[in-house]
Amino acid sequence: MIVQKYGGSSVSDTERIRNVARRIRKKVDAGEKVIVVVSAMGKTTNELISLAESVTENPDPRELAMLLSTGEQVSAALLSMTLIEMGVRSISQNAMQLEISTFGDFDNARIADLNLDKIYAELEKHDVIVVTGFQGVDPEGNLTTLGRGGSDTSAVAIAAKAGVQCEILSDVPGIFTCDPKFHKDAKKLDYITYDEMLELAALGAKVLHSRSVEIAKKYNVEILCLSSFSEEGGTRVVNRLPEWLEQPVVTGATIDTNQLKIAINKLPGNTDIVSKIFQAVAGSSFNVDMISIVNDNGYIHLAFTVLSASPAAIKSTIESVLVDVDNWELAIDEDVAKISTVGVGMRSSAGVASRFFLALQKAGAKIIATTTSEIKISVLVPKSQAGKALKALLDEFEL
Amino acid sequence: MIVQKYGGSSVSDTERIRNVARRIRKKVDAGEKVIVVVSAMGKTTNELISLAESVTENPDPRELAMLLSTGEQVSAALLSMTLIEMGVRSISQNAMQLEISTFGDFDNARIADLNLDKIYAELEKHDVIVVTGFQGVDPEGNLTTLGRGGSDTSAVAIAAKAGVQCEILSDVPGIFTCDPKFHKDAKKLDYITYDEMLELAALGAKVLHSRSVEIAKKYNVEILCLSSFSEEGGTRVVNRLPEWLEQPVVTGATIDTNQLKIAINKLPGNTDIVSKIFQAVAGSSFNVDMISIVNDNGYIHLAFTVLSASPAAIKSTIESVLVDVDNWELAIDEDVAKISTVGVGMRSSAGVASRFFLALQKAGAKIIATTTSEIKISVLVPKSQAGKALKALLDEFEL
Repeated sequence: MIVQKYGGSSVSDTERIRNVARRIRKKVDAGEKVIVVVSAMGKTTNELISLAESVTENPDPRELAMLLSTGEQVSAALLSMTLIEMGVRSISQNAMQLEISTFGDFDNARIADLNLDKIYAELEKHDVIVVTGFQGVDPEGNLTTLGRGGSDTSAVAIAAKAGVQCEILSDVPGIFTCDPKFHKDAKKLDYITYDEMLELAALGAKVLHSRSVEIAKKYNVEILCLSSFSEEGGTRVVNRLPEWLEQPVVTGATIDTNQLKIAINKLPGNTDIVSKIFQAVAGSSFNVDMISIVNDNGYIHLAFTVLSASPAAIKSTIESVLVDVDNWELAIDEDVAKISTVGVGMRSSAGVASRFFLALQKAGAKIIATTTSEIKISVLVPKSQAGKALKALLDEFEL
Repeated sequence: MIVQKYGGSSVSDTERIRNVARRIRKKVDAGEKVIVVVSAMGKTTNELISLAESVTENPDPRELAMLLSTGEQVSAALLSMTLIEMGVRSISQNAMQLEISTFGDFDNARIADLNLDKIYAELEKHDVIVVTGFQGVDPEGNLTTLGRGGSDTSAVAIAAKAGVQCEILSDVPGIFTCDPKFHKDAKKLDYITYDEMLELAALGAKVLHSRSVEIAKKYNVEILCLSSFSEEGGTRVVNRLPEWLEQPVVTGATIDTNQLKIAINKLPGNTDIVSKIFQAVAGSSFNVDMISIVNDNGYIHLAFTVLSASPAAIKSTIESVLVDVDNWELAIDEDVAKISTVGVGMRSSAGVASRFFLALQKAGAKIIATTTSEIKISVLVPKSQAGKALKALLDEFEL
């Protein structure tokens, strides 16, 4: 038994659906039972969101989940009927039928459980179950969605519950040292650890939904990332790298240009104001990333970045918190990009940080801010220098 | 409390969805709780069928129902979020959530029951429930569809169970004496009986799904047919016409050009062969309509019509039955149209049939076949004469 997840680009038209069906049939012919999780076809989810926005600027989250969950039901039904025509015993199942129960927000729900007995019962009668990804049902019986990319999480959750391997098929043949669209010499990795993958996913490498990796790590689900368009060997996401593998210091590098840098200077030396600012920023659903705080002669200088935000919106949020505070200064900088390197090898290798900063210095990149973790170093640089800085790091760490 | 059903053309785009939402809000403002049943937007169902046919010529019926039922979920969610934006407390519910249980075929399922307690519970918290029409769930938990036009049946079934009135809103303001597209002098009826409506629906007047009228008759649900685009008074479908109303002899006339006439002559005088033919024809899902059988000197001459069939398909079905029979002759005629008049007044009025045939004779129409019931007369005429024949009947009976 195996779980396979096919992304939106793998089922974006009927020819691709037939291609996917042929891949699944091969597994069945080899004697496997296959639980297939599908995303909505191509741009369907975006189209449904546009449709919702054409009737209301601010769609009700419950109704939006009801709307969006139709996308996966369409692709699941189409894929299943294609399999049936090819002679494969297949049945599609939506979240209500498989009792994929969730908790939390309608648009970012988390999986609590699913009915494995139902899966086993259907696999008695069929060789393939095609499951609608991205969706669940809350305790009140409302449909929910798992957030963008949530089909990965559906697939890994099923694999975890059933204790089987999970293949994630997309339009790229695995995980690369950096985005192949940015850097044509990017190398495909044979293995990557859950921890590295979590850092990469959080950094904007859109190969796997972060929560799917968290679940995989928790339940030790082996994930194999493959392309649905080739037979090329993919990347295995594992707990620890095989012993025989030469351990690289740095596994990957990423670039993120959706950052906005906020600097608030000359705040009164009272830490309460900082937590109030972050409360307001989080309350307005801004995603805060790199944070630095400096105390200077009774003043606080605060700087942080937010993801994909409008400068005007963040400005008005901050002004509303600081309405009774005098003399503070605000600077918002859109011309920034975040460059990061990730690798479990950093833990044990001395001198990674010095090689990192030396490479950037040689490339003439101005470092605006820095954050580090055990297996990651990130810097903020001006957008115009980002490409050059990334290249310097890729060369330095032979990525 | 009231049930309102909005057809596909009433919700075909976002502007029309807003128009429908405004109509519903008026009811709510007047203090009513509204159960709204919606069809899929515009041509959505046809588009989904085309999508299925692009992956397989013969889509699996279970998977097709899974696919098609998404259409109503899209329109229900969109309408509900529009109502919420207008300040109306609304919630959408699909067939699984309302437990609309069905039996029978996946593509022509019949409603067995639905969860009225769930409806009442939702109407405690909301003023409007928007229900996906056309769909149900079978005892195994599979999604089913009620057949084309099935949203009418969903609406009337809910109205029957709740014991309330049902408004059916479409793009025409009621039931007409004949199709206004064919005959611009068509008159709108204020009242029509269930029995007349059943004959008209069966004859191809696409205003109401036949099964919805059967349910309405069985449970005495008053149906009001209205246009969603105007405030014009509609047509009430009732058990019997009000006493004060002048009783018309003939209520309506219809034309049906989807008939195919099959004549099989010189069959051996053995009625077994006739039932075998009808078994095979029904087994191949042909809809048999007008039947005539003549015994002649030990031979049987059989003629009947089928709806929307391919001549080649019906020919091969008949040949397969008669493979061991000699000397029979087959004639298939596509150039036919069926013209019918319906009216409860026919029961008590003498001379209706003679007026009917005299009018056709004066119009020079050649009558190929005839069938009659207590409240209906139908004739088959050459297609080229159909328009003239219909006009003659409309004039004769002042429709």
